[in-house]
Amino acid sequence: MSGQLPNLAADAVLKQSIDVPDTFVKVSGVDYSKDSAYDSKATDLINSMRNMGFQASSVATACDIINEMSLWRGKHKDDLEEHEHTGVFDNEGYQRSTIFMGFTSNLISSGLRDTLRYLVQHKKVSAIVASAGGIEEDLIKVLAPTYMGDFALPGKELRDQGLNRIGNLLVPNDNYCKFEEWIVPILDTVLEEQQAALKKAGNDALDADSDAVWTPSRLIDRLGKEINDELSVLYWAHKNQIPVFCPALTDGSIGDMLFFHTFKAAPQRFHLDIVSDIRRINSMSMEATRAGMIILGGGLIKHHICNACLMRNGADWAVYINTGQEFDGSDAGARPDEAVSWGKIKAEAKSVKVYADVTVVWPLIVAATFAAQKP
Amino acid sequence: MSGQLPNLAADAVLKQSIDVPDTFVKVSGVDYSKDSAYDSKATDLINSMRNMGFQASSVATACDIINEMSLWRGKHKDDLEEHEHTGVFDNEGYQRSTIFMGFTSNLISSGLRDTLRYLVQHKKVSAIVASAGGIEEDLIKVLAPTYMGDFALPGKELRDQGLNRIGNLLVPNDNYCKFEEWIVPILDTVLEEQQAALKKAGNDALDADSDAVWTPSRLIDRLGKEINDELSVLYWAHKNQIPVFCPALTDGSIGDMLFFHTFKAAPQRFHLDIVSDIRRINSMSMEATRAGMIILGGGLIKHHICNACLMRNGADWAVYINTGQEFDGSDAGARPDEAVSWGKIKAEAKSVKVYADVTVVWPLIVAATFAAQKP
Amino acid sequence: MSGQLPNLAADAVLKQSIDVPDTFVKVSGVDYSKDSAYDSKATDLINSMRNMGFQASSVATACDIINEMSLWRGKHKDDLEEHEHTGVFDNEGYQRSTIFMGFTSNLISSGLRDTLRYLVQHKKVSAIVASAGGIEEDLIKVLAPTYMGDFALPGKELRDQGLNRIGNLLVPNDNYCKFEEWIVPILDTVLEEQQAALKKAGNDALDADSDAVWTPSRLIDRLGKEINDELSVLYWAHKNQIPVFCPALTDGSIGDMLFFHTFKAAPQRFHLDIVSDIRRINSMSMEATRAGMIILGGGLIKHHICNACLMRNGADWAVYINTGQEFDGSDAGARPDEAVSWGKIKAEAKSVKVYADVTVVWPLIVAATFAAQKP
Amino acid sequence: MSGQLPNLAADAVLKQSIDVPDTFVKVSGVDYSKDSAYDSKATDLINSMRNMGFQASSVATACDIINEMSLWRGKHKDDLEEHEHTGVFDNEGYQRSTIFMGFTSNLISSGLRDTLRYLVQHKKVSAIVASAGGIEEDLIKVLAPTYMGDFALPGKELRDQGLNRIGNLLVPNDNYCKFEEWIVPILDTVLEEQQAALKKAGNDALDADSDAVWTPSRLIDRLGKEINDELSVLYWAHKNQIPVFCPALTDGSIGDMLFFHTFKAAPQRFHLDIVSDIRRINSMSMEATRAGMIILGGGLIKHHICNACLMRNGADWAVYINTGQEFDGSDAGARPDEAVSWGKIKAEAKSVKVYADVTVVWPLIVAATFAAQKP
Repeated sequence: MSGQLPNLAADAVLKQSIDVPDTFVKVSGVDYSKDSAYDSKATDLINSMRNMGFQASSVATACDIINEMSLWRGKHKDDLEEHEHTGVFDNEGYQRSTIFMGFTSNLISSGLRDTLRYLVQHKKVSAIVASAGGIEEDLIKVLAPTYMGDFALPGKELRDQGLNRIGNLLVPNDNYCKFEEWIVPILDTVLEEQQAALKKAGNDALDADSDAVWTPSRLIDRLGKEINDELSVLYWAHKNQIPVFCPALTDGSIGDMLFFHTFKAAPQRFHLDIVSDIRRINSMSMEATRAGMIILGGGLIKHHICNACLMRNGADWAVYINTGQEFDGSDAGARPDEAVSWGKIKAEAKSVKVYADVTVVWPLIVAATFAAQKP
Repeated sequence: MSGQLPNLAADAVLKQSIDVPDTFVKVSGVDYSKDSAYDSKATDLINSMRNMGFQASSVATACDIINEMSLWRGKHKDDLEEHEHTGVFDNEGYQRSTIFMGFTSNLISSGLRDTLRYLVQHKKVSAIVASAGGIEEDLIKVLAPTYMGDFALPGKELRDQGLNRIGNLLVPNDNYCKFEEWIVPILDTVLEEQQAALKKAGNDALDADSDAVWTPSRLIDRLGKEINDELSVLYWAHKNQIPVFCPALTDGSIGDMLFFHTFKAAPQRFHLDIVSDIRRINSMSMEATRAGMIILGGGLIKHHICNACLMRNGADWAVYINTGQEFDGSDAGARPDEAVSWGKIKAEAKSVKVYADVTVVWPLIVAATFAAQKP
Repeated sequence: MSGQLPNLAADAVLKQSIDVPDTFVKVSGVDYSKDSAYDSKATDLINSMRNMGFQASSVATACDIINEMSLWRGKHKDDLEEHEHTGVFDNEGYQRSTIFMGFTSNLISSGLRDTLRYLVQHKKVSAIVASAGGIEEDLIKVLAPTYMGDFALPGKELRDQGLNRIGNLLVPNDNYCKFEEWIVPILDTVLEEQQAALKKAGNDALDADSDAVWTPSRLIDRLGKEINDELSVLYWAHKNQIPVFCPALTDGSIGDMLFFHTFKAAPQRFHLDIVSDIRRINSMSMEATRAGMIILGGGLIKHHICNACLMRNGADWAVYINTGQEFDGSDAGARPDEAVSWGKIKAEAKSVKVYADVTVVWPLIVAATFAAQKP
Repeated sequence: MSGQLPNLAADAVLKQSIDVPDTFVKVSGVDYSKDSAYDSKATDLINSMRNMGFQASSVATACDIINEMSLWRGKHKDDLEEHEHTGVFDNEGYQRSTIFMGFTSNLISSGLRDTLRYLVQHKKVSAIVASAGGIEEDLIKVLAPTYMGDFALPGKELRDQGLNRIGNLLVPNDNYCKFEEWIVPILDTVLEEQQAALKKAGNDALDADSDAVWTPSRLIDRLGKEINDELSVLYWAHKNQIPVFCPALTDGSIGDMLFFHTFKAAPQRFHLDIVSDIRRINSMSMEATRAGMIILGGGLIKHHICNACLMRNGADWAVYINTGQEFDGSDAGARPDEAVSWGKIKAEAKSVKVYADVTVVWPLIVAATFAAQKP
């Protein structure tokens, strides 16, 4: 065989390809002949990443989708029937998309809290879904700081010192003691209010509009009001009437405090109803003129927003950012296309999943989108 | 330099090591000189994996820990004071460990449901924490099957056909229609019961022991009773009085049905309280003589069990199995040692994280532990 | 809106699905009513995993594919022309598939070495591609053991003690000193042989069949002969004439020793040619009647086998097992379908990727396939 | 138990922590009160990420380390003995660190090629280690472009069209045909040169300094010269005398061409020696005054640079960027601390691993470091 080029191999290796259609886009990168490549601005960087391939392109796509959902405008209020006055409107009276933003607890523990707060402060989003830690850590950070640590710090020594580790961050346990001092009087008060409402409403106390029914979103709103600090996400959510949903609000430090409170208040007990909150979030989805999803992390916060968007037969835009993989069949790892099969994202929607730790890409994405013009 | 071996390199490469201590264990694998290596049994395979390294060793460690937590026995009831009669006892009256098992929704969708049901049926675990899908999919599977699919099936076509994808599985949407038919009468009934209890209890209706307070675990128990099918995890949980916690029970199909029911029942509304459930799970943790955690998957179900175990200053054993990574600071990816820093796992506890899709390792682990002897 | 079920939501949630085709396969799991579920055998476990979903199903598919490629038989030698006498034949003279098995260095460091050796010893595979560490660690393990360690052992202390860490394994540096003592005389000899061949061949010394040309596979074969130990993978590869390819053989301890040897032997120098090895592996691919790929890990060993199979316009079967993900565009993470686009796997081939650490699944897979019958 | 707060829980939850040391750094994020937060510049963004936690902090640390290794200066040539004139010097005669940069093939396929080329063009790095595709794709891109695709494009259809997929990129197979046309005459020439050198050198043909010995780095240098295009990484590597190592150069399209060439040239054959290249890269490591590693991706390119740095008893700085995880014991996933145990990174070195797809972070990192000032 030595002297003859084998056809089998030659044909396989040198197989001819079709003529490339005109629509094909060439891979390209940063153009270092331009000044904008040096210490570049967020928007320039994103533009350079658009046709770079792999996740660089996904990041750029995420920016495009966010800009689109954020800047979308529909009809003016005056051109709508009364019953069409649902969803979100801009200051000039035009329909806007309803943007559901979900984030996990660790992002509030990280320095991203400032970015999330910025978005809420400036009404860039319409509703929030967070895990329990995403609620309490925002409040606790008003009381005392979180510190930089290291992924490798040994658990036993940290526990001896009362330092709780979250990835490469540390939260001194005293922060939770301060949180207890702060929240117990509030829990006393809301319990009183609940009991008073029960007495007042009597047999209607568990009806739809009963003031005796407290939900996680209602309690979170109260906490945001009470914390009264401009660095807090929840403060601005309260101020801007952006509902914050957290169906499992008991799953963390607030849960610990509610648990303790069951002893203090016995035989009375404060109750949190989750049915009225599912009514609330699903109604927002149905009433939205257009709906966008921005999901930072996985787990409950991802599923909850997607499920709400099923009520409108799918979101119009979706951006997922997380590190989950689909191979284990987890919802956290599911691609947007899985949500399409469920009717949670419309088939014609623009969607993208960015496979990245949120802290790596979200500051850049926000800098190049929501914050590309100063408000 | 050509002719002379450089000392710098030689010293670095040929650096002498310490004498290996006698305690060091040699890496080893399957011994194919033994018949047990051929079509081997689960216990033989696990024994061969113990000193194999990487995650093979972690799987074997998980088996060791599970055996230890499962077989642990304390004092006899007769040797305990009345107030010490808390936690779990075996049939002969000896103290057992309280085992909290958490799993995510997708595992119930998968064929692992049979394995999870086996564990509940035979009282191998003491309490369950599941995500909402982990509840409803167990019930739905009694009504209609889930099917094998493919990760790459396109979402749009699936939606057109009404086939919902979960990883490489498919759930026909009719299954959810059947579920609606099944659950609506039950929701009617429990609403009636709640309203009746409200009327009966009056101003005490929101007290600790009020019958008007329904929690997720109470509703799940009722659903397990109603489904009345021996293939169901929840049926056996009801039968064996194993509480099933799901603080965000509204985050899925049951939530859709509860949402619909708010329209049907208006102005009445069924309510689900999550405070009494945090009281319940935390109390189980405190009352446990010893506590073990078996956490299959990440997200809420992982955090919720860990948080409950903080109430007893830490679990005594912990097995995590999931694919999460710690680099993004997620709780899903956190190693057991992070939970040690929080007091959720005792410093001296035995713990392991197995980095794997649960479906790959859990059948093997159960075969080699809980199911190594026929009950 | 309170009293009326919204059609939008109802239609989306209760969308009717198509009638499920008869071909659909129901998800199922372990049947604990059978004795085989208890301490189950590998083949029983695999059968239970087949329709379990997620990666459990992938593991079962991998077993099916391996059995198929392993048991495939073609024509008898007597029914073939002389020039068709290429590829692999079984002992009775029937055509077999050529199986390329690739593995990364860490697998030889782990206890999987015994399993890999078993496969080579019993001629279950036809050719091997390994990374450099996969060669030298097999030899070194004959000289001294590798030990169990821990992923979290601190690097500085280990370096002070001369203990090299590989994941949760430890290799004392003295092992490499012993390796140097063992290999230097062999390098002296092969250099002598190379120089003698050069002198003998003169101007033909760099021709195709020149004895002066040493390739990585030729040196590895010699090392396998010299190590002369039945626990060694390379010993059996030599004995069974199974070529072991390692184009970057200098990338590790053997490279260190070759580097040192350049000083000792100067101005003479031993040379290793990689062109003749690409000729050799590609020829095996072209001459194969059928070709199967078993790729354990990622990186070079994966690409190299795939690339060789391009020469035959694609492998007929492919099993990948690794933890790589496709989102970063790495070859390590690429699914088999990416190789189809290149002609490295046939479009009609059976292929699967199992997303798992190899140590977790390979012992089980081998127990249920190659080792399901004692040879 | 109802009325009394359990001490066990209270003590565990409200455990007091130590006083936080002054050295602790507070977690912080983007300061949106500053104009620099809006469409922010790379350096401002990086500064905001430094104490953000998780991988945001790792990205900032990577920038710090890169700046340090890049800007480090030692003694002036005039203050050194003749034998100390090794390693890299800046234009003014001061010692610089030797920077080894490794990258995988897919990064050259992506738009990052421009960034990698920029670094080589401006002598920001001292040596390169690439996988085979990282060599040939740079050359091929001069001949014809790579295009944007999608991760989900089906392999069979692509193969029918002759479009090869790399993640979400597409390379028309004609590109490889063009490459063959380009490279065959060069292979003819280098074979002639090798044969001529053999004849000239005779019995010394395989000695250390023989011109008959061609290595991958020598061939790559020639290809960089021949391609003669300012968009090519290899062109600039040739021009700036930056060696490019690729021990497994045959593992890709160049290997295909070398394989074909063995038929065309028979009985003559071009040979590539890898021993002289390990001598070369290890010598660079030993001669370096300080050594830094920038490793983009995993597999061979990572191990090869680390191994070279063992020859100097460890690199002084190390930046890893990849998506590999350590749990499977792979070298790709190993943290820098594993390399410390081997003496490949100094114990006192600054090192970081960024867990991210390189395309997401490398443009930003380069913009904020090497390209923060226009050259």
